[in-house]
Amino acid sequence: MNTDRIAVVLVSARNPLNIGAAARAMANFGFGDLRVVNPYAIPFRQARSAVGADPILAAAREFDSLPAAIADCTLVIGTAGPTRRQPQHSVHTPAEAVPFIDDHLGRNSTHRAAILFGSEKTGLLNQQLSYCEWLLQIPTELAQPSMNLAQAVAVCLYELVRTRKPVAHTGSSVAASAADLERLTSVLTEALLASGYRSHPENRADTLRRFIHRLQLSAEDTSLLLGMLRQMLWKIHNPG
Amino acid sequence: MNTDRIAVVLVSARNPLNIGAAARAMANFGFGDLRVVNPYAIPFRQARSAVGADPILAAAREFDSLPAAIADCTLVIGTAGPTRRQPQHSVHTPAEAVPFIDDHLGRNSTHRAAILFGSEKTGLLNQQLSYCEWLLQIPTELAQPSMNLAQAVAVCLYELVRTRKPVAHTGSSVAASAADLERLTSVLTEALLASGYRSHPENRADTLRRFIHRLQLSAEDTSLLLGMLRQMLWKIHNPG
Repeated sequence: MNTDRIAVVLVSARNPLNIGAAARAMANFGFGDLRVVNPYAIPFRQARSAVGADPILAAAREFDSLPAAIADCTLVIGTAGPTRRQPQHSVHTPAEAVPFIDDHLGRNSTHRAAILFGSEKTGLLNQQLSYCEWLLQIPTELAQPSMNLAQAVAVCLYELVRTRKPVAHTGSSVAASAADLERLTSVLTEALLASGYRSHPENRADTLRRFIHRLQLSAEDTSLLLGMLRQMLWKIHNPG
Repeated sequence: MNTDRIAVVLVSARNPLNIGAAARAMANFGFGDLRVVNPYAIPFRQARSAVGADPILAAAREFDSLPAAIADCTLVIGTAGPTRRQPQHSVHTPAEAVPFIDDHLGRNSTHRAAILFGSEKTGLLNQQLSYCEWLLQIPTELAQPSMNLAQAVAVCLYELVRTRKPVAHTGSSVAASAADLERLTSVLTEALLASGYRSHPENRADTLRRFIHRLQLSAEDTSLLLGMLRQMLWKIHNPG
């Protein structure tokens, strides 16, 4: 996904905290182009110029009108809750939307997409929606459809990058060999016998082996468990 | 996805606005079981009892300790940013995590999952992570990995409902609850202490708990192992 060619456009956002939180979500997911249209001007400017302001917030561009904000965009997508009636627009979930956006940006390197978010109170107005090619709708519950603005931004941007792998993948653990597990079974059997643990002697080994195997231990955990059992066994034989 | 059997657990959340925003995201995506552990008590209670408080927030349960909050849960998942090193845990993206959670809940109708979110400042601490079977990691940018708490909740819950997958049935064993595993951890700790097993005392409990949790034991095997350890412990105390 060409995150550098996707703009987040907040239209008439009222709460500077929401604008700041939207900027943070953009940074979290690798987006940088924030545009605000007619925000409540004074608190927004204060938030933006504060010491330690988010670089994305500091670089955000402010526009007097929606057409000016999206002038360079070749794909304009509106966001709306599930209760809004949209007879004139196609509606896609974020998941469905991703291939459309990807395809659009991939067709030409000058293509740019804008995702519009409306004000906290009303969402996007019909006039604002008229600039949109189609609508993106997060599948919220009908009983509580309206999302917090910055959370909606986070969910949409997350969807655009969600197939990325986590960066800090830990190596997959090495499974224990059958020989390791057999050693473990044998020490466990010995420790239980020495403890007077009651079980049916004729199938004891099988029962314990089945138990050990179904734990699906890693080599490391097998060795850890073996050490613990050996220590307990030693103590049983060397009391006091 | 059985959203009614997934609890959102906020551990040491500091900002009542974040707790409120997390509750709102839960309502947006059809989740209802909110548990808070050691929140900043006074602002949380004020937010909760405010006129017009979110019903989820009003019904949220407050706990003094993490073990108490997750005692009835059979799958405990931690959340962490990509910069945290987790050599002892498997790490999954939200997308990868969904089938695991689905499968776990589908296996038995008594199974419950908890998703833990740490405090705004530190995330989950190592001691808190020791209760987790595995970690869920939202694939954020390394340059700006740390998400806003409520946005992280929104993204995780969104992922859980973005596609409805058929429930997979792979077996019928009932998973151990966190309370069962805590009992097992405690008996194992006691047996090792009594045996003179060497480990660093300052993090012994966490290390053993992490070991026990990553085994992903069934309730039956937990009880079997508990019986074995109790017998060994008895023998250590009653030699000869």
